[in-house]
Amino acid sequence: MDLSEIKINPIERDYLDRAWERLNNLTKPRGSLGRLEELAAQLVAIYKDFNPTIRGKLFFVFAGDHGVVEEGISAYPKEVTAQMVFNFLRGGAGINVLARYAGAEVRVVDVGVDYNFSKIDGLYSKKVCYGTRNFTKEPALTREEALKTIKVGYELAKEAISQGYNLIGVGDMGIGNTTPSSAITAVITGKPVEEVTGRGTGIDEKTLNRKIEVIKRAIRLHHPNPEDPIDVLSKVGGTEIGACAGVFLACAESGIPVVTDGFITTAGALIAYKINPLVRDYLIASHRSQESGHQFQLNYMGLEPLLDLNLRLGEGTGGALAMLVIEAALRIYREMATFESAGVSTAIV
Amino acid sequence: MDLSEIKINPIERDYLDRAWERLNNLTKPRGSLGRLEELAAQLVAIYKDFNPTIRGKLFFVFAGDHGVVEEGISAYPKEVTAQMVFNFLRGGAGINVLARYAGAEVRVVDVGVDYNFSKIDGLYSKKVCYGTRNFTKEPALTREEALKTIKVGYELAKEAISQGYNLIGVGDMGIGNTTPSSAITAVITGKPVEEVTGRGTGIDEKTLNRKIEVIKRAIRLHHPNPEDPIDVLSKVGGTEIGACAGVFLACAESGIPVVTDGFITTAGALIAYKINPLVRDYLIASHRSQESGHQFQLNYMGLEPLLDLNLRLGEGTGGALAMLVIEAALRIYREMATFESAGVSTAIV
Repeated sequence: MDLSEIKINPIERDYLDRAWERLNNLTKPRGSLGRLEELAAQLVAIYKDFNPTIRGKLFFVFAGDHGVVEEGISAYPKEVTAQMVFNFLRGGAGINVLARYAGAEVRVVDVGVDYNFSKIDGLYSKKVCYGTRNFTKEPALTREEALKTIKVGYELAKEAISQGYNLIGVGDMGIGNTTPSSAITAVITGKPVEEVTGRGTGIDEKTLNRKIEVIKRAIRLHHPNPEDPIDVLSKVGGTEIGACAGVFLACAESGIPVVTDGFITTAGALIAYKINPLVRDYLIASHRSQESGHQFQLNYMGLEPLLDLNLRLGEGTGGALAMLVIEAALRIYREMATFESAGVSTAIV
Repeated sequence: MDLSEIKINPIERDYLDRAWERLNNLTKPRGSLGRLEELAAQLVAIYKDFNPTIRGKLFFVFAGDHGVVEEGISAYPKEVTAQMVFNFLRGGAGINVLARYAGAEVRVVDVGVDYNFSKIDGLYSKKVCYGTRNFTKEPALTREEALKTIKVGYELAKEAISQGYNLIGVGDMGIGNTTPSSAITAVITGKPVEEVTGRGTGIDEKTLNRKIEVIKRAIRLHHPNPEDPIDVLSKVGGTEIGACAGVFLACAESGIPVVTDGFITTAGALIAYKINPLVRDYLIASHRSQESGHQFQLNYMGLEPLLDLNLRLGEGTGGALAMLVIEAALRIYREMATFESAGVSTAIV
């Protein structure tokens, strides 16, 4: 995959200005719908459409395993990754419930699970490997594998966009995946490992200290180059993280808004952002995760999340809730009366 | 109206415990859906139902005028209150758009607008007065009128509950109504007027200073008694604020969750809370308003809002967005698979 061929156009000031002109004429004090108005303006500019409409909502849930789990850094056994894939396919996981409510389809993708699913209905089989390697000993992925994970996300997103989906979110499943996400975040943002490493699914103090030590050891061993995102992804990353990056790049290239979830998907956004910072114009940060490093990722890209509900599940669950707010913002833009049409007086001071 | 006859039962620990038992068995790390889980447990306990279901959602938008507007404390002319009532009835206001999206009905109530609507289809005519009096000169309402406003909200809510609505929100419309809301907040929370007074619909520094001075003058003149909420409501309150208080009391008495909006409706919640603090168990604080005093109201009652989207429109708009989150929380509770049913391994540490 040749990343230099991905062309992203920045959103245009003119669309934002014209969107704000309409927003300022709606029957409310200027700016009184806060983030909804900012979101509506961003969406008008992304879609280049003054009657912006969501035609189809979709989540990709990327699943992958992590060799580093053998270092004892997770609260759950590795088998849970595959078990949760079955749960996604049966519709019983958090993302299934919330995506149904938000009116979004869920596509479950095996990008690197250490399990042989053979042919299972509904599962997108895009396996790059049977889990990453233990990055305390060797790089998690080869450079070629890392590029392949990005390609998986990129091509799936392009396919979905060609099918008419125009609001896409990403989710992750992978026992141990806050560990590579913290490593990526430390390398790219330059923050100390301690500050960007949290308790993931709920590890104790002792396990947290081991996790921090494991990440430090991997960074010392591999020296990932923060200015070479593929180097970072291959040395200390994960397959689902790479696939998320691919989705972000594809959506930005195609002019489609794309919704982050929590710490893992936003690590994917960091990779995409380092590949092409223009991707940022198309990102909608759904929520602020409980995972401490998430804030540093968002700050690095200058993103402000919509929601803060103490979530730390992943899977795209925060993104699904954000899609409700996104839809609400568009309806405000499209459906509210103007001062003139409603015969309402404007401000006197 | 005899307020001492309103009987509110606290929610029961046992329902909360059993709700958490189910939440902890769903296929996610414990507590990883944060506020959604807390909300689901609260709703189970409010409804006393382990299969909690929203059968009907409804907003009351209470409109009233304020004599104190003649002191020049608002950015909009008083006529806008009545103009916006027509906008609500035609479905063009923010609350109409967001309530439609949330699947909620909107009932527009004239509880004290200074305009003669005669008979208009769709408007609930419950006029207590043609606007409050200018409280820098005399009490805003008589004690009898204040009680009447509470009765308006109480009876409308009881009627709606008998019709099957089991999730109710309140909204407000009334040019100038952040001024009585700040006065109520200062008196009840004991905070300095400066700290609980903000820019409302968007006034300038000079008008803000006048607004603060107007509120201080009214409090000095009337000495509202913070332990007598009817005294506070009558001396420095408003008709729409009293009606909100009535809705909160009725919902709590009937065991129905009720959603606050921003600064004005939460002033109504303060009045209800001082009448009977058990009302708190049934309140869901929808969002944190941009209006600075809102935080002090929420802190006083120990409420944590769900959303923080820089809203300051009122009308119930934040409440409508919160209803989306509430519905999402209930679906998580009802629809997610358990570890056992999905064959997913539980935590190892």
